[in-house]
Amino acid sequence: MNQYMNTAVELAEMVSGQTGENPPVGAVIVKEGRIIGMGAHLKAGGSHAEVKALNDCDESPEGADIFISLEPCNHHGRTPPCVDALIKAGIKNVYYAFKDTTLDGRSGEKLNRSGIGYHYMPHPGTADLYRPFLITKNKKRPFVTLKCAVSLDGKLAADDGYSGFVSNDLSRQDVHQIRHRHDGILIGGGTLLNDDPALTVRQDSGRQPVPVVLAGNRELCADMALFNHPVRPVIFTTNEKNLQFSSTCQIHTGSFSNEEILEHLFEAGVSSLLIEGGTRILTQFLKKELFDDLIIYIAPKIFGYSSYQIYNEKIHDMDSLKLMLHDVEKLDSDIKLTYRRTALCLQD
Amino acid sequence: MNQYMNTAVELAEMVSGQTGENPPVGAVIVKEGRIIGMGAHLKAGGSHAEVKALNDCDESPEGADIFISLEPCNHHGRTPPCVDALIKAGIKNVYYAFKDTTLDGRSGEKLNRSGIGYHYMPHPGTADLYRPFLITKNKKRPFVTLKCAVSLDGKLAADDGYSGFVSNDLSRQDVHQIRHRHDGILIGGGTLLNDDPALTVRQDSGRQPVPVVLAGNRELCADMALFNHPVRPVIFTTNEKNLQFSSTCQIHTGSFSNEEILEHLFEAGVSSLLIEGGTRILTQFLKKELFDDLIIYIAPKIFGYSSYQIYNEKIHDMDSLKLMLHDVEKLDSDIKLTYRRTALCLQD
Repeated sequence: MNQYMNTAVELAEMVSGQTGENPPVGAVIVKEGRIIGMGAHLKAGGSHAEVKALNDCDESPEGADIFISLEPCNHHGRTPPCVDALIKAGIKNVYYAFKDTTLDGRSGEKLNRSGIGYHYMPHPGTADLYRPFLITKNKKRPFVTLKCAVSLDGKLAADDGYSGFVSNDLSRQDVHQIRHRHDGILIGGGTLLNDDPALTVRQDSGRQPVPVVLAGNRELCADMALFNHPVRPVIFTTNEKNLQFSSTCQIHTGSFSNEEILEHLFEAGVSSLLIEGGTRILTQFLKKELFDDLIIYIAPKIFGYSSYQIYNEKIHDMDSLKLMLHDVEKLDSDIKLTYRRTALCLQD
Repeated sequence: MNQYMNTAVELAEMVSGQTGENPPVGAVIVKEGRIIGMGAHLKAGGSHAEVKALNDCDESPEGADIFISLEPCNHHGRTPPCVDALIKAGIKNVYYAFKDTTLDGRSGEKLNRSGIGYHYMPHPGTADLYRPFLITKNKKRPFVTLKCAVSLDGKLAADDGYSGFVSNDLSRQDVHQIRHRHDGILIGGGTLLNDDPALTVRQDSGRQPVPVVLAGNRELCADMALFNHPVRPVIFTTNEKNLQFSSTCQIHTGSFSNEEILEHLFEAGVSSLLIEGGTRILTQFLKKELFDDLIIYIAPKIFGYSSYQIYNEKIHDMDSLKLMLHDVEKLDSDIKLTYRRTALCLQD
């Protein structure tokens, strides 16, 4: 594994989840065996990694090589083409770790015409890194992560509805890390009224994801913790009485399909959505396969018979909702399982 | 960690599960820095590890040290006291890794009187190794392992009752390994009639655990696979019609509590019992806390609403059935979780 490409991918991983609809990218400029500049794309609308790395150089990058975690762009977006910046800087060789199928594919051609070497140098870390980016680009919806915490017999709460904290301290800290990496957090009206969650990321430097509520017909109350959220909440509701909160929330009244809601959020800049559902929301998004990852925390408890299930409809083919286990983590006496939808993101 | 004690504990682990009501023990005899004999207790009624190791010596064990995974006995059981054999052989020092609280505690005294050093040398592997032995000795019932395979939403089968294979090949192979380490396998009448399981250990050299069925009021059929089992099955039933199978099975008619059933099996030589329950059996044994380990295989599937649950009664205190996560294993896309009852075995 090339050490400079490794560094470029590591830089990209550091900013993963904070670049909105843009991919996380890292770049390292190397001259005579020394790194002379490095950088990462920090947020959508900001400079690309290649430009950040060029700007980082204290000496001339002429004749240097650049290692980038993703193919450089050749188009005018909110910033000029990176390919032009690389040519202008006199870079000698461009190495990239992942092919960006959303580009026009002309970057290499243009660089070659300017006498610059263009080399594909695959890196095993990039498939996971760019999965959300490719999914959002292809599906025109946010990357969706379903999350729930259950007893070891798969219940969100005991049947009396009181769940207290199902999972332990470590799991709840982990949830905050995960919230931090998403642009939006979606809950249902049941969770809103039962738990009155703040939906804030309780971390010092956390940027706050947009809170989204599928309130259905439920009527909101003025004293909900949600109304103190630093980011204006987005509410989808069929209850017109909720329009009274239009000064503090963005209220959408009417019947919206889950697809329409995702589309709307995507257009509003939400590229990654964490769904912290109760039974109704989880069942809807699982049934329509409107998710990419499913994260389940399993507490070492048994809740027994309960209507608070992950999925409350009957299944007729036991393989109809089959997932792929991606990761297992032990968090003290809890277990964190990360599943992916079985279909591969690039083929569906 | 002393290398010889390590070897003694490893020998004991090799025979764990095959020594019935006796503990698994390994012994290593060391003279002038070389192992001159080693052995393990292979089955209840057979020679103890100390004697096996002495018999294994090609040279005189006089003046040698012995490393034993458990305190040597000083009583006449089915075999004479090991302490006497060690004295007679001229052993110089006895090192043991785990204190056997079921003994009279006089072994050290007797050895010391004969001028033999007696040394406690704890080993971290022994707590797990002797947990089943201490539980069975204290509780006068088999060590009970509950086992089930569920979807990730905690269901044993989809609601139509057809589960096919919930878990994958690796998990099912693992179950056979586990069956192999138990003296008995218990199922309910529902499982017997629905699945018609053979309950054999499909391994070349496997000794076969005793099949036990809690048939309740259900009537057995002559063509059940169980009747071809190499070991005579034990059936508990309230249905007198089942007495017709008395020639091939041991039939107990009447109402038995789960405690009585465990007691009976223990007296019949079943020191470790694997319960492969459906909902009814799992709920009974969980509710009465008549288990020591709970092994759950979680398949990457969702079965949705289903009456085939792990525990089908309502829980009113979410911490009432709290377990301790002991081990996590990834078996391809399945997960194997091993829980223990929260109460520590030596204190309850």
